[in-house]
Amino acid sequence: MSRSPGRKQENHKISRELFVLTYGALVAQLCKDYEKDEDVNACLDRMGYSIGIRLIDDFLARSAVKKCRSYSETANMIAQVAFKMYLGVTPSVSCNSATGNEFSLILDKNPLVDFVEELPAERASLCYCNLLCGVIRGALEMVHLAAEVTFLQDRLKGDAVTEIGITFLRKPEDRKHRR
Amino acid sequence: MSRSPGRKQENHKISRELFVLTYGALVAQLCKDYEKDEDVNACLDRMGYSIGIRLIDDFLARSAVKKCRSYSETANMIAQVAFKMYLGVTPSVSCNSATGNEFSLILDKNPLVDFVEELPAERASLCYCNLLCGVIRGALEMVHLAAEVTFLQDRLKGDAVTEIGITFLRKPEDRKHRR
Repeated sequence: MSRSPGRKQENHKISRELFVLTYGALVAQLCKDYEKDEDVNACLDRMGYSIGIRLIDDFLARSAVKKCRSYSETANMIAQVAFKMYLGVTPSVSCNSATGNEFSLILDKNPLVDFVEELPAERASLCYCNLLCGVIRGALEMVHLAAEVTFLQDRLKGDAVTEIGITFLRKPEDRKHRR
Repeated sequence: MSRSPGRKQENHKISRELFVLTYGALVAQLCKDYEKDEDVNACLDRMGYSIGIRLIDDFLARSAVKKCRSYSETANMIAQVAFKMYLGVTPSVSCNSATGNEFSLILDKNPLVDFVEELPAERASLCYCNLLCGVIRGALEMVHLAAEVTFLQDRLKGDAVTEIGITFLRKPEDRKHRR
């Protein structure tokens, strides 16, 4: 998936509406396929993971970012470079733990739900955008960062903002060094 | 879905890769759901139709195009304005019939198959991008143009180009006037 230097950058840009509606069709199909919201959420997360492990090469090639030296730098990179590049929005980032491995990406506006008004009553536990969590998890894993990524708040469920929580899982050798 | 004039245009643009991979996940899911390629194709077409009937409002609002006065003008509008806006590519257009109601959109490069190398042998009849046909059909129907939209050639199947055929179906009153 390496990009030739001559490849035109403007070719990478498309209109968001088609993506948003296609994503809606995907979620609707999974809701037909699986009765339980938890199964739909898990499937979206798995799909996202498969996308993330492929998208990371594209991201590294096009963003030309350098290796991050801290979890905080990584979280900011996801928000300011990756979200901006792939979804055209920049979430704000907050650190949620004294140990410095838990972060939130906070979206005032979630571009993926442009055409969604609210979740149907029988789908109250659906994490509509769970694909994004999987994408982040998959991409991070490819740069050797294990993380748990979940929705903490969701405007579709009546919350004031949409909040994605990222918890970087410390590697066994990290813990060993700390003993 | 009306757009306020102050809405920033740049917010509409996203990177194509995430869309392409998400679309791939959708097709893969349908291939799990349906054994027969024909059923996957029909489902993609139906999904596209639902998208097209919603996307047309967005297209008309953002493109500010005027009413087309001929099938030829409509085909060119789809290629030069709609494809450019939503997929970042401009197919060439050819007219395929003396009656002036059959057109082809010819894509040297199909942005939707960026990450697809070839179709698996057991999926030889799959129209991978059939969603696009449905989108065009649905959008046209909303401006009172009935059309059949199908893939005539597909680079994924070894053809030299990807070709989408659009046949505008004459309305009964058209025929009546001609008698």
